[in-house]
Amino acid sequence: MNVTVRGRTQSFRTVTFDVRTNSLRLIEQRLLPHEFKIVGTRDFRQTARAITDMVVRGAGAIGATAAYGLAQGALAFRGNDRKKFLTHVRVVFQTLAQARPTAVDPLNAMNRVRREMARGETVVEQQALALAAAEEFANEDVRHCAEIGRQGAKLIRSGMNILTHCNAGWLAFVDIGTATAPLYAAQKQGRRFHVFCDETRPRSQGATLTAWELDQQKIPHHVIADNAAGHLMQRGEIDLVIVGSDRVLGRTGEVANKIGTYTKAVLAARHKIPFYVAIPLSTIDWKLTRGFDIPIEERDEHEVLGAWGIMARPKSEFQKLKLNSRVYVRVANPGSRARNPGFDVTPAELITGIVTPAGIFPPAQLWKHRRELGYGS
Amino acid sequence: MNVTVRGRTQSFRTVTFDVRTNSLRLIEQRLLPHEFKIVGTRDFRQTARAITDMVVRGAGAIGATAAYGLAQGALAFRGNDRKKFLTHVRVVFQTLAQARPTAVDPLNAMNRVRREMARGETVVEQQALALAAAEEFANEDVRHCAEIGRQGAKLIRSGMNILTHCNAGWLAFVDIGTATAPLYAAQKQGRRFHVFCDETRPRSQGATLTAWELDQQKIPHHVIADNAAGHLMQRGEIDLVIVGSDRVLGRTGEVANKIGTYTKAVLAARHKIPFYVAIPLSTIDWKLTRGFDIPIEERDEHEVLGAWGIMARPKSEFQKLKLNSRVYVRVANPGSRARNPGFDVTPAELITGIVTPAGIFPPAQLWKHRRELGYGS
Repeated sequence: MNVTVRGRTQSFRTVTFDVRTNSLRLIEQRLLPHEFKIVGTRDFRQTARAITDMVVRGAGAIGATAAYGLAQGALAFRGNDRKKFLTHVRVVFQTLAQARPTAVDPLNAMNRVRREMARGETVVEQQALALAAAEEFANEDVRHCAEIGRQGAKLIRSGMNILTHCNAGWLAFVDIGTATAPLYAAQKQGRRFHVFCDETRPRSQGATLTAWELDQQKIPHHVIADNAAGHLMQRGEIDLVIVGSDRVLGRTGEVANKIGTYTKAVLAARHKIPFYVAIPLSTIDWKLTRGFDIPIEERDEHEVLGAWGIMARPKSEFQKLKLNSRVYVRVANPGSRARNPGFDVTPAELITGIVTPAGIFPPAQLWKHRRELGYGS
Repeated sequence: MNVTVRGRTQSFRTVTFDVRTNSLRLIEQRLLPHEFKIVGTRDFRQTARAITDMVVRGAGAIGATAAYGLAQGALAFRGNDRKKFLTHVRVVFQTLAQARPTAVDPLNAMNRVRREMARGETVVEQQALALAAAEEFANEDVRHCAEIGRQGAKLIRSGMNILTHCNAGWLAFVDIGTATAPLYAAQKQGRRFHVFCDETRPRSQGATLTAWELDQQKIPHHVIADNAAGHLMQRGEIDLVIVGSDRVLGRTGEVANKIGTYTKAVLAARHKIPFYVAIPLSTIDWKLTRGFDIPIEERDEHEVLGAWGIMARPKSEFQKLKLNSRVYVRVANPGSRARNPGFDVTPAELITGIVTPAGIFPPAQLWKHRRELGYGS
């Protein structure tokens, strides 16, 4: 998507590959929204560290980064000895797999690259196939998100106020994003609308990343406290809700997503506001039979007890300030502790539709449409 | 309530009067939860400034402060000239009334003091009556809160998990508080329970003030992000919700309170969790006929776009740190703006009961019980 740096607008992906230097170029997401910077990783170990340290985050983005990282590692091999090459590739794979051990996307992505590589006879051919497969993985991510946008744009009419929660934007994928894809597609089609970004405490991805994305794409928006959406719905100020998801159960239509999603779905149902979840097919879990069994990560309590930001006077012109690095401030009472469940599960009955690259489906009908949705493939 | 400072536990009110020095002693609430400090105001102008600058906040607490401030001003008068005294008192009244012009409690409190003063014949008698009336106003606030506690304690059983939103604690009154009163009363009766404090963005009064109060009273509690309550209710981890209110409509049972209250009421209703609102009688508005007409203050957007806290490393031992003064950090994207409605309105159908000093009533029955609830008095 477009990013404007010092008045110059350019198009970026979250991750790209530079063949000439055998390096990945990543948006340094930890500096956002206060600074936009591209960083390079010169070898697969640096790439793995970028995943671990959350320079890059989000299902699609870390999948593509791992795929490129595997190709990068393969390309760094010197010589023609296939056996040594295989051993080397195994080390690269393991290193990248351990970079974010609970995530499934890097594994899926690297397995695809490895399958493609296996078709090659010589080391050089395998190296070339690895790079081609990684590039194809990233391109496919972009195509899928574009397709989600094409499907979801139908939901958006000019004049609408749309609520989104957390960041399922292009920063979480290679480009375009999922929850944001319908917004970007509708904007391209000339529709004018306004977005409310839930702050999304405790990590505030809505106020930081989603707001930054919409700001860059010049989509009118306001940040709101997570507490405010109910009131705005009551006053008729929200017409549509679109969120992303970390896991959708194909058998039940239940949706796991960032903590607070369930609350917004309950409010939307009460006010008869359509509530949509936008996902790529890889997000569908066809195995689990009930949402209650989705493990809910309990995260570090300091996320709740404080906040990260740049030091500034509240009324100053932030855009003109020299940017300081982010600091952590303790907000809560020093003697108190916190609970911090990171995700929640929204039942199918509260969800109007699941927006996928293959179409929009009521959540209870995912199973019926499982072939179209890639079940078993 | 009890406060432990450097290992020593003492009982405090938010505001007390020192006759010897003709000064008010106030808890400097802007330093909480990071520092506990009592400050004195030496004349009524300093007292007015303490209200304006939010050294003291909360309906009951600013009411009592204004009442004491009027007495303080009256007591500072030298001489026996009744006419000059009356002129002087008028200046004191105006100064204190303008300290927080939208609040109704200081006016009500000072009008009561002035009515009592009028019974005196000499200046000295009027001065004495002013102080007696102010002291009685504060004592009555404490008695009412204690009665709310006595009524509300019946709702609490040992082992319960109780959710509260924002701060309707003793810091907002002279002592005991409203939403917290049932907690403190049940604790005194030996019941053991656990409280979840909603952080209450954007000003985080739950994470700061309520958590501090519960910490001082040694009531087990955890702070949670405002996003987390829905998930905890879904998992059966919340048994009861108690909140305060800024205005309850006596004719409809609708409740205006800090933004996010409505959301919690919707969630509680869905999960069949009892939802109570604890208030003194002065909070009931017998005039308005629909909640939609309650003006909802749109507050400064910087509250949403950032956070206040003390600088610290997330994992350090906060209690051992030398305390820094609070700083503001900008959290949100620098180019984005925010909407910041400060309050919302919860319809009667979502509220189990209104806990008052005169008993617990279903919200729809307030009007029926209006005589007991002080209507017309």
